[in-house]
This record gives sequence, C-alpha cells and structure tokens, in this order.
Amino acid sequence: MAADAPTAQGAPEPLFQRLCLIGVGLIGSSIARVARARGDIARTLVVTARSQATLDRVRELGLADVVEEDAAKAVEGADGVIFCIPVGAYAEVMARIAPHLAPGAIVSDVGSTKGSVVRDLTPLLPKGVHLVPAHPMAGTEHSGPDAGFAELFEGRYTMLTPLAGSDPQAVQKIAELWRRCGSMVETLDPVTHDKIVAIVSHLPHLIAFTICSTADDLAEETKEQVLKFAAGGFRDFTRIAASDPTMWRDVFLNNREALLEMLGRFVEDAHALGRAVRWGQADYIEDRINRGRKIRRGLIERHQA
Amino acid sequence: MAADAPTAQGAPEPLFQRLCLIGVGLIGSSIARVARARGDIARTLVVTARSQATLDRVRELGLADVVEEDAAKAVEGADGVIFCIPVGAYAEVMARIAPHLAPGAIVSDVGSTKGSVVRDLTPLLPKGVHLVPAHPMAGTEHSGPDAGFAELFEGRYTMLTPLAGSDPQAVQKIAELWRRCGSMVETLDPVTHDKIVAIVSHLPHLIAFTICSTADDLAEETKEQVLKFAAGGFRDFTRIAASDPTMWRDVFLNNREALLEMLGRFVEDAHALGRAVRWGQADYIEDRINRGRKIRRGLIERHQA
Repeated sequence: MAADAPTAQGAPEPLFQRLCLIGVGLIGSSIARVARARGDIARTLVVTARSQATLDRVRELGLADVVEEDAAKAVEGADGVIFCIPVGAYAEVMARIAPHLAPGAIVSDVGSTKGSVVRDLTPLLPKGVHLVPAHPMAGTEHSGPDAGFAELFEGRYTMLTPLAGSDPQAVQKIAELWRRCGSMVETLDPVTHDKIVAIVSHLPHLIAFTICSTADDLAEETKEQVLKFAAGGFRDFTRIAASDPTMWRDVFLNNREALLEMLGRFVEDAHALGRAVRWGQADYIEDRINRGRKIRRGLIERHQA
Repeated sequence: MAADAPTAQGAPEPLFQRLCLIGVGLIGSSIARVARARGDIARTLVVTARSQATLDRVRELGLADVVEEDAAKAVEGADGVIFCIPVGAYAEVMARIAPHLAPGAIVSDVGSTKGSVVRDLTPLLPKGVHLVPAHPMAGTEHSGPDAGFAELFEGRYTMLTPLAGSDPQAVQKIAELWRRCGSMVETLDPVTHDKIVAIVSHLPHLIAFTICSTADDLAEETKEQVLKFAAGGFRDFTRIAASDPTMWRDVFLNNREALLEMLGRFVEDAHALGRAVRWGQADYIEDRINRGRKIRRGLIERHQA
C-alpha cells in the first residue's frame, strides 16, 4: 500500500495527515494511544470531547497533538474523522460537523451498532465525504480517557460495514488503520453485523444488567448475603454489568430489532430448560449443557476463548 | 482448639486420623492437595472413586495414602468422610457406605445444594454418625483429578448448614478443616443457602448454558460468525458454560424450587428491560444498568470482585 511507503525521513508515511477523534473514552483513548505509539497512523492527531474535564485529562495524558473543544473546528482540515461517542449522539454531532468536513475526508466510527450508524449519518453526509462504518470487537468494563490502552485491539476482530457505493480506497484506509491497531479486519453488511453482535455482545450485556438488578431486588437480608457469597458465576456477570450505562443504553435502543429477536429466542430456551428442571428431564438438561460446551470448544479452537 | 495441639514430634495433630474423600474431581482433588501439602488435615488420606481411570490417575498424582476402589471399604475406620461427587449420586452411595461407617464418624460434603443433601443423607445416617453438610463457594470451569489445586479455596467462603441437633464438636471440626484450606467459614440454614446459591451461582450457570445453546441453534452461517466474532461478553458466558455437565444437571434437579423461583424473577426482569428497549424508555434502561453497577461496587468493596 502507498500508505506504507517510507517518507524522506525513512519513517513510514502516516495513514492520515490530520485524524480527528470525536470522543475519547475507552475506545477513542486506545486509538489515540496506538497512534501516539506508532506514529504511522496520523501526522497530527486531533481530539475533541464534550466535557472540559475530559479535554483537560487528554492534555494531561498527552494523548493528542491538538485538543479542541468545538467539534466543528476539530474536524476542519481533517482527512479522517472517527466517531468514538455513544451511538445515540451520532446524528446530533454529525449535523454540527457536516458543514465543516473537508472534501474527500473519510468519516468512520467505532459504534457497536451499524444499521443505526448508516441510518443516522448517511443523510447528513456531504458530497465527496466517504463514510466507512467500523466496529472494533474489543472492550473492557472500564470507561473514560484513562481506561484506554494501546493493546486493546490486538488479536481482536474489527468489522467494517461499507455501503454498496463506498470508495474502495477509503475502505482500504480504514482497514489499514485497524490492522495497524493490531486488529483482524472483516467486512460484512450492517444487518448481519447487527444480528451477530446482538447474540455475542448485546444480549449478554442485557442479561448481565438484568440478573444484577434481579439480585438487587431481593429482600435486604438476602441481598447482603448475595453480595457476601457471590460466587464465580455471578462475579463474571457483575463484571460485564459494570460497563458504561450511556453507551449501553444507546446500543440497546439502536439495535432494537435484532436484540429483541435474540432476547425472545433466549427466553424461550431458558423457559424450556426451566421446564426440564421442573419435570426432572435429566437428558434434556445434559444435552443443553453439552451444547454450551460445544460453543466453548469452538472458541478455543479459534483462539478466541 | 485441641486439634491444633502439637504432637510429640512437634507437628500439629491432624484434624482427622483417617479422612476418606468419596470422589476426586475439581473439589475433591483440591482438598487432597491441601491435605498433602499441610499434613495437619489427615494422618491418613483415603480416596475412592467410581472409575478405574480416575483411581489410576490419583495414584500417579500421589494424591492419597490409600486409593480404594470400593467405597464401602474406603470408609471403614474413617473418622471423617467427605462426599465430593455430584449431588444426584449421594443417596445411592450413602446406602452403600452407611453400614460401614465407624461410630462417631463425621460425614460431610461439598455439594452446591444443601436442602437435597439433608433430604438424601439424613434418613440413611447410622446412629452415632454426625452429618455436617458444607459447600465451598469456589470452583473453575475445569473438572477431574487434574483440575484441582491447593489454592482453590483461599479467600473464598465455605457455607456450613448444620442440622438443629448437630454435635457442635463435629461442626467445629469441619469448620476447622475449611479454615485450614484457606476458606472463610459461615453457617446458615439449608433453605437460605439454596436461595442464595440459586441467584449467585445456579441461575448464572443456567443462563450461560442457555445462551450458548441459543447461539448454537442459529442458522449455520450465522453460527460460524458467532464463533468468529465472539466478543468479551459472550466469551465469559462460554467459560461458565464449560463446567461439568453431570454436576450441573444434578445441581439444577436438586435445587429446583429456588432455581425456578429465581429464573421466574429474572425472566420477568428481562422482559421488562426488553419492553423498555422496544418502547424507547431510555430512563428505565439506564436505571437498570446502574443497579447492575451498584451490585458490582458492592462486590468490589467486599473484595469479592
């Protein structure tokens, strides 16, 4: 790729001359850290965020070359812009920055829903600006600019969901950005993406939030004991449930159809297993447990466990 | 305690002269490893198991002083007997060993359900033999004699559910055994125990098995992608779902009432959250997420996270 060609100084040419990150939470600050560490992602890294405290923290951490309060100003002259904010805020922010986007700029994102991103950003996209939605399948339960780390994306998949008429060069550039972050890049359509993440990520989070609030609803005495005796199984669920509330609220609301479909299937299956427990159907229970183990083995074989 | 008094040789007197472990999976082999490492739990450690392969492996690993195929012979002369087998097998094994239990022996166990243990063992208990049910709240998704390790119980709670007329000295001895394994010991009644573990452990496992089998049911194409893109959330669920099928089948069937009650509450709550997603009730969703986070903070404060 041309982007890999060495510059006069012998250092590889950065992918972007001016890359603007809108939002700098776990994902945004991890991209910033990779970009700073590698030097071949952005010649100039611009970060904008809504809160003054976050901007101050970005300056303290030295995460960007330019820290800019005004998103419209931040994107000016940028050849790359990445939304790293909750998906529910995309439309409003896009409306604000759209008139300021440079011709030929590539707009991308890191949101966990892709149908909603296409729905919210496409109508506002200026002519000559390229949209390449992306979703790095990586994260922890921590949030904010301090939560990021440069290794977050290593060995994890990043899904790209380019549109039918997307400029192949723009898609290649975003793919290369993620490869430089250590990611394996896959391309698929937004509908399939949203269905897959509904089962592998959104439903597990909905379930984790639910079981924790179910526990919280138990009588005061039992609840204290729940906390005291929280065993392995529950501990893992509370870890998932510690994730950022605004981000997850937006994810649920913006992947409604697929999430509700998967929730429906899951509840049917949970009831079927509950029924087998009620009626003492040992074989059915064992079969279901063994199917769970099969999925686990599949993950281990794929080095994703 | 008298049990801590040094012997003539200066080493502390073992808690049991002859301790027999019935079953040697993750929990049993971990107890054996602690007992071997410390030397003050059993003067003679006897292990019995159903399969010849397991017995051979116990010999290879040097986990016991005596390896005995026949459970009835294994318990002869033992002052301590611990059931470390799936709870569904208790009644049958107890019927076989009861005539061979020594007067004054203490029978205990490590099962995840306690109401069923009292139900299954009490009627078969010979006069003069003491029953002290116990449940170490520790485990991994691995099973078998190779899965155990001496540190498994360190810093974890072990719940004792003695009966109303239990001999206090027998209860103290089992409590001391678990303290020597590194556990914090708590006493509570079987009904409360079963309710707590239903929410903190059994329901999470039922949910994990279910979501993995729901994923397995998806169309072939999607399933492959589910495996490929399994993100953090789902990975944790598959880890839980990898646990031993026989053990969990028995746990579900032997904690039916409490498990089905908790499953009912959970499904109600999941539906309520799903309804909020359908109708775009952002505040409700955020509130539920925040309650999950509250539970997490509670665990962190208790150093159980």
